Amino acid sequence: MITQNSSSSTVACLRREDITVTLRPRQEKVCVDEISRLSDGAELLYRDRDGDVVKYNVDTEERTVLVTNKKFEMYKASKYQVSPDMKHVLLAYNVAPVYQFSYTAFYIICSLETPETWNLNPPEVRNAQLQYAGWGPRGQQLIFIFENNIYYRSTVESRSIRLVSTGKEGVIFNGLSDWLYEEEIFRSHVAHWWSPDGARLAYATINDSLVPRMELPMFTGTLYPMGKEYHYPKAGEENPVITLYVVNLNGPLHTIQMRKPEDPRISEYYVTMVKWATSTKLAINWLNRAQNISILTLCEATTGVCTKKHEDESEGWLHRQNEKPLFSKDGLRLFFTRAIPQGGRGKFYHISMSVSQPNTSSDTLQSITSGDWDVTQVLAYNEESQLIYFLSTEDGPKRRHLYSADTFGSFNRRCLSCAMSDSCGYISGSFSHNMSYFLLSCQGPDVPFVAVHKMQRDTESESQERESMSEVFKLENNEVLRVTLDSMQMPTVEYKEISVDDYTLSLQILKPATFMETSHYPLLLLVDGTPGGQTVSEQFHMDWFTVLISSFEVIVVRCDGRGSGFQGTNLLHRIQKKVGVFEEQDQKSALSFLLKESYVDKSRVGAFGKVYGGYVTSLLLSGEETPVKCGAVLSPVTDFELYASAFSERFLGLPKPDPRAYAMANLAHRASQFVEKKFLIIHPTADEKVHFQHSAKFISQLINEKANYTLQIYPDEGHFIQSEATRQHLTQSLVNFFEECFRLPERVFEEVLEEESEDEG
Amino acid sequence: MITQNSSSSTVACLRREDITVTLRPRQEKVCVDEISRLSDGAELLYRDRDGDVVKYNVDTEERTVLVTNKKFEMYKASKYQVSPDMKHVLLAYNVAPVYQFSYTAFYIICSLETPETWNLNPPEVRNAQLQYAGWGPRGQQLIFIFENNIYYRSTVESRSIRLVSTGKEGVIFNGLSDWLYEEEIFRSHVAHWWSPDGARLAYATINDSLVPRMELPMFTGTLYPMGKEYHYPKAGEENPVITLYVVNLNGPLHTIQMRKPEDPRISEYYVTMVKWATSTKLAINWLNRAQNISILTLCEATTGVCTKKHEDESEGWLHRQNEKPLFSKDGLRLFFTRAIPQGGRGKFYHISMSVSQPNTSSDTLQSITSGDWDVTQVLAYNEESQLIYFLSTEDGPKRRHLYSADTFGSFNRRCLSCAMSDSCGYISGSFSHNMSYFLLSCQGPDVPFVAVHKMQRDTESESQERESMSEVFKLENNEVLRVTLDSMQMPTVEYKEISVDDYTLSLQILKPATFMETSHYPLLLLVDGTPGGQTVSEQFHMDWFTVLISSFEVIVVRCDGRGSGFQGTNLLHRIQKKVGVFEEQDQKSALSFLLKESYVDKSRVGAFGKVYGGYVTSLLLSGEETPVKCGAVLSPVTDFELYASAFSERFLGLPKPDPRAYAMANLAHRASQFVEKKFLIIHPTADEKVHFQHSAKFISQLINEKANYTLQIYPDEGHFIQSEATRQHLTQSLVNFFEECFRLPERVFEEVLEEESEDEG
Repeated sequence: MITQNSSSSTVACLRREDITVTLRPRQEKVCVDEISRLSDGAELLYRDRDGDVVKYNVDTEERTVLVTNKKFEMYKASKYQVSPDMKHVLLAYNVAPVYQFSYTAFYIICSLETPETWNLNPPEVRNAQLQYAGWGPRGQQLIFIFENNIYYRSTVESRSIRLVSTGKEGVIFNGLSDWLYEEEIFRSHVAHWWSPDGARLAYATINDSLVPRMELPMFTGTLYPMGKEYHYPKAGEENPVITLYVVNLNGPLHTIQMRKPEDPRISEYYVTMVKWATSTKLAINWLNRAQNISILTLCEATTGVCTKKHEDESEGWLHRQNEKPLFSKDGLRLFFTRAIPQGGRGKFYHISMSVSQPNTSSDTLQSITSGDWDVTQVLAYNEESQLIYFLSTEDGPKRRHLYSADTFGSFNRRCLSCAMSDSCGYISGSFSHNMSYFLLSCQGPDVPFVAVHKMQRDTESESQERESMSEVFKLENNEVLRVTLDSMQMPTVEYKEISVDDYTLSLQILKPATFMETSHYPLLLLVDGTPGGQTVSEQFHMDWFTVLISSFEVIVVRCDGRGSGFQGTNLLHRIQKKVGVFEEQDQKSALSFLLKESYVDKSRVGAFGKVYGGYVTSLLLSGEETPVKCGAVLSPVTDFELYASAFSERFLGLPKPDPRAYAMANLAHRASQFVEKKFLIIHPTADEKVHFQHSAKFISQLINEKANYTLQIYPDEGHFIQSEATRQHLTQSLVNFFEECFRLPERVFEEVLEEESEDEG
Repeated sequence: MITQNSSSSTVACLRREDITVTLRPRQEKVCVDEISRLSDGAELLYRDRDGDVVKYNVDTEERTVLVTNKKFEMYKASKYQVSPDMKHVLLAYNVAPVYQFSYTAFYIICSLETPETWNLNPPEVRNAQLQYAGWGPRGQQLIFIFENNIYYRSTVESRSIRLVSTGKEGVIFNGLSDWLYEEEIFRSHVAHWWSPDGARLAYATINDSLVPRMELPMFTGTLYPMGKEYHYPKAGEENPVITLYVVNLNGPLHTIQMRKPEDPRISEYYVTMVKWATSTKLAINWLNRAQNISILTLCEATTGVCTKKHEDESEGWLHRQNEKPLFSKDGLRLFFTRAIPQGGRGKFYHISMSVSQPNTSSDTLQSITSGDWDVTQVLAYNEESQLIYFLSTEDGPKRRHLYSADTFGSFNRRCLSCAMSDSCGYISGSFSHNMSYFLLSCQGPDVPFVAVHKMQRDTESESQERESMSEVFKLENNEVLRVTLDSMQMPTVEYKEISVDDYTLSLQILKPATFMETSHYPLLLLVDGTPGGQTVSEQFHMDWFTVLISSFEVIVVRCDGRGSGFQGTNLLHRIQKKVGVFEEQDQKSALSFLLKESYVDKSRVGAFGKVYGGYVTSLLLSGEETPVKCGAVLSPVTDFELYASAFSERFLGLPKPDPRAYAMANLAHRASQFVEKKFLIIHPTADEKVHFQHSAKFISQLINEKANYTLQIYPDEGHFIQSEATRQHLTQSLVNFFEECFRLPERVFEEVLEEESEDEG
C-alpha cells in the first residue's frame, strides 16, 4: 500500500467509506427558512436535527415547535411550508424529482391549531400529483399547479379556482419553467411571481409546441420500457415561446399580457428575470436570442404596458441576466448590477442605481461601486440609512464578503465580514425584513456554518467603523463533520497565480497533509471551465478527490483561466466563437507550472471533468504532447450542436448558416488521439441535460479510430443522479480509476524507494 | 512481454492484426450456388475470386463466365441470382441488413444475352426498396416482396401482379418472417415456398398486431434520434399468429388457406416447417406453444385439407422442429428424423421412413437407422437405388460424415466420407439433381475447403465397398489462409472425456504450439451452453482467442455438458425448468479437471460467453469458490423473462402463473457476488435479439450491490454486428481484456522464473 509509505502519524486517512457519511452534512436535517419572511426580524424559522420545525426568537431565546417531526413521519412528508399567518403548514409527500429543481408531489395542509387537514386537489380530481404548491404572501392564500394549469385558493377552506386553462402537459407550461427555462434561464422551475400585497400573480406561459422532442431511452422498470419524450431545443432549433401575464386575484378574474418592448433587435427573445417592483409594477428583463442585447422594462400590471428602464448591449454574450434588481419601497429607485469598464481587464460587474425623475421621462443612472472586482449579489437596501448591502469579490476573486455602501455622496463602502476572514472567506446570506439581522452562511474555507448576526450601527456617527455585525446565534456548526475531520489527514490548500501574456491563471493546489518536497506525487487536475464559472475559490469542498489526496497521496489542482468568471470580461469573453481552445491551453499551462516542481511525478498525471469540464478534459487527454495519461469524464459534452440552444448559442452563435464554430469545437476531431489513453466515460443513460447521445456518438467515433475507452453507465438515471447507491458507485469508480492510474508499477516503486534512501543517505 | 519467454522459434505468433486479414476467408469472394440447381449434375455455378459468376462443367472442364465482375461493379451489386433458364441475372444492390438473415435491397434484372435490363418495382412505385426478390423454379417467373405484400411476374417483361395485399409494414408479414420466426423458428427470413413445378406458391401470413412492441434506443445519425420499434414477444406475451396460404399462379388468382389440424392441444401454435411434397401436396409441421407436441401434416394445396402424417410428443421440449423431411418423387415415401429411445442415454435422432399405403389410411413407419448417435441431416433419396443419404455423428459426436443407407432389407449403411477422416472430420454438402455429384464442404478440423466429388457405385454388386466418392474438382482450398497459418504457431487441439455420475463431459483443449508440461499457463474457458448446442466439435475456428493462445500462451478449453446436443436427450433435457444450474456445474467441473494439471496456473482463469453463454459465464464468475477471476460477456441474457418467448418458454415454460423457474434463473441473485471480480460486459445498444435492457437492468443491480463492472457498448449496432470497424474493436477489446487479466504481476513473474530455474537446477 502506498499510504503505508507516509510518515507514521496517528491521524487517520480519509477513506472512501467516510465520504458517504460526511458528504452534504448541511442538507441532512437542518434547513433554514429565509429569515426575511418574519417581519419582526428577530424570529427565525427552521427545521432542526430532530426534524421539528422551530420558531426561534433570537432576542428572547424563545423556542417554539410549530410542526413536530412526528407529523412529517405520519405523512411521510419531506418538504414543508408554513403559511404567512403561521397557522398552517403545507406538507409535500411522495416527492418525485423531475429535472434539477422541479418535482411532483402530493400535498396536505395541516392546521397548526386544530387537528384539521385539507388535501390539495383540483376540483373533481382526487389524489392529484401536483407540479407545485405554495402559499402566497398574505394570510392563507395559496396556489398550486396541476397539468400545467394554475389553481388559486384564497383560504385553505375555500374552493380552488382555475386561473388559467391553456396548460398542456409537457407542451404549454403555465407558471412553471419548461426544461430550457428551468435549467438554462431561470435556474428555477418556478415561473410565477406574487405581487408583494398578494393581490396579483404574474406568471409565464411557455409554449414548447414548436420545440423538437428528444427521447430519453429507458431500460428498466417494465418488460417493454418506452423512451421518455420531452421538448429540448438543441443549438439552432426552435426555442420555447414565453409570454408573461398578470392575473388579478381580487374580484373577478382579469388577466393581462405584459407587452414586450417593440424592438426589432429582440424579435426572438428570452425572458430572463421577472420581479415585482411595487404591488402594481413588474420588472421584466428581455434578452434577444443571440444573448447580446437585453432590455430591462418596468411594466404596468394593470395595462400591460412596459417601459424601458435600461438597455445593455455587448460584443460578447451578456452574462448574469437572471439576477433580480432591487427596488426601493416606492419603486423609484432601482439597484442592479451591470458590467462597467474598469481598465485593462475589461468590464466588471458593479451596482448601478437608477432613480426615476418624476417630472421627466428620463432616469438618472449612477454607478455606486467600481474597481477591478465584481459585485456578486445585491442583497438589501436600507431606506432609512440609504445604505445598499451586497456581496463582492473586492477582497479577492476567490472570496465573497458582505459590504455596505452609501447610495449618496462619494458612495463610501465598508466591509462588514472581512474581520471574519480567518474563519470565513466565502459567505452568502440574507437580511431580516427590518434589516437588524443577517443570516450568514459561511461556505468556506473551513467546514461551513450558519449563524445569525445582529447588525449594529451608530446612526449618529457617519464613521464607517461604527457599522458592524456580531454573531448572536449559531444555527448550524456542522460539529460532527468538524470533529470527524479533525482526526483526518485533510489536504492543505495553496493558491498560486501565474502570469501568462496579459492575463493571470488562478490555481488552487491541494496537497496531502503529509506532503514532503522530496517525495514524488501523482497529479490530478479537476477541470470545469464552464464559461463564467469559477473553480478556484475558498468554498469548502469535500468529495471523492479528497479521498485521493488523503489516502492515496495525490496532489489535486484546479485552475481558472480564459473563459472563467469574476476576473473581468476580457478573460471571460476570450473564448467567444472558439470554445475549448483556450481552456485546453490554460489547463495545460497550469499542469506545466506544476510539472516543473520536483515533487510532482510527471508520469502520473490525470484529469477529471463533467459536462463542459468533461469536454475540456477530453481535449486535454487527447492533446498533442499532453502530460495527461488518464482522464475520466462524467456526462461530457462532445458536440455543441447536440446541446441546449441557450447554452451553445451563447458562446458559438447559431450553427446555421455557418456551422464552422461548431465543427471546430466538435470532439470528433480528436477521436484518433485516444488510442493509447486510459479514458473512462461515465454517463447516466437518461441524462436530460447532456444526452447520452453525446457519449454514444463519440464512442462510435472512438471505435472507428480503434481507440480505447471504458464506459460506465447509470441505467435510467438522470443528469443530477438521484439514487444514493448510484452516487456511491460513482465515487468509488472515480477513486478506483485514478488510484489504479496512479499506482506505481511495483518494480519502479522499489527503485523509487531506493533512490529516496540514497538521497537521504 | 510474456511471449519473449517462449522457446525461441522461427515460427511467428499469430498477432491480433493477423486476424482481421484471415478471418472468414471462405466468405470473401467465392460463393457456390447449390449444385442441385443444375439438372445435368455436372454443371456448377459459382462466383470466383475475381468476382465473375462462372458456370463450370466438371465433366468437360468447360468454364463459362455468365456475369462478369464488371457488371457487379457497375451496379454496386453485392448479391445475385441466375434465373433457372440461365438467361437472366437478378442483381441486388444497396443491400441493408435488417435482422440476422433479412435485408432490404434494390434489384435490377440483366439479360445475359442482350444489353436489356429491367428494374424490379411494384406497379406505380419507383426505385422501391424490396424486402425480397427471387426467381421461381420455372423459366423467368419471379416474385418480390414490398411493404409485406407479394408481387409476381411470370416473365421478366410481364406486368407485376400483386398476389396478396393484407401486408402492413412491421405488423402483418406476407411471405416473410417476423422477427420471432426469422430468428427462433424458421431461422430464415423467407416464409414462402414454390411448388416444384412453379404453378403454386405457398406463403405464410404472420400477424404481429397483438405482439407487444419493443423499442430499441437510437443515438446517432440525427440531431433528435428516435427509438426503433418492432414487435418482439417476450416470455409469456402474445405471440405472432401464423396462417398458411397457397396461391395458384396459373390462370386466375386463387388463394386457399391450409387448415390446421383440429386438435385442442395445439390451440396456440407455431408453424415450424413448410415443404412441398409434390406439386400439389404441402408438408407442414405444427408445434404447440409449449413446444412438446408436434403434428406433421400433408395438406392438399387445392382444398386446404391437412392430414396428419406423424405426431410427436415429448416430456422435454421437442428439438429440431424446423428440419425438412424428404419425399420420394411420388410423395408416397417420407423420410424425416425423430428422437428414438436408444437405451441409457435416452433418445437419439434417427431417420424414420413413412410409406403411404394407397389402399388404407394408415401409413407404415420404419426406423432406418439406430444407435447412440444422431442423424444430423437427411440429404437425398436415390429413387433408383433406394438409398438414403445423410450426415450423422456415428463416427463420434464431434464429427459429421456422409453416409448412405438402404431403405429396405436390413437397412445396411456405409460411411462414404470416413476415409477422409484424417483431412476432414466435419462435413456438410449437397447432391446434384441426378445424384452423381456431391458438393462437399469440409468445415474442419483443418482449414476448410470445398470440393466436388463424383459418386461411384457399382450397381451390379450389392457390396457396400463398391459405393464410393472421389474428388474431381477443388473449388476452394483457402490457399492463402493455409499458407499464412503454416508460418504461424497455431494451437494444438486435444479432446478429453470426463465421466460424471451417469453422463460424460466432452472437452476440447487448445494449447499453444510451444506448450511445455513444466510451464504454467493461464486458462480461458469459452462458454456456450445454448441448449441443444455443441461447442466441442472438429469444426475449424479461428478468432480472437486464437491470438491469445498463439501470442499470449493461453490454454483455451471448451466443454459440452448437460443441456448440450448430439449426446442423447437425457443429457439435453436435464436442464428443463432449471436453466443455468447444471451448465454452471459442468463448466466448473471442466475447469476443476484442468486445474488439477500442473501446467495450469490456478490464479489466472478467465471465461467468455455470448448470449446464453454470457449468462452461464456470469454464473461461473459469480459462483461460490469459483476459480474464475475475470469474465467477459457479449450480449448476455440476464433475465429470461426479457428474452424471446419461443426460446425462454421452450426451457422454462410460461412465466405465468408460476414465475419461479424464471425467478430462479434470473442473474439478479448473483449481483452481490461480482464485487471483487473483473467483469466486462459488451453489448451493442440496438441489439434486437438480446435487448440492451438485459445488461442495463443487470448493471442497475450491480450498482446497488456496489459491484464492479466495465462496459463497452457499440452504439446503434445490432446483435449481429455489421460494421467491420466494430468487429475489429470487439476482437481487440477481448484480447486486451484477457491479456491484462492474465498478465503476471512483474514481481510474481520473477519469482516464478526463479522457481523454475531452481526446479531446473
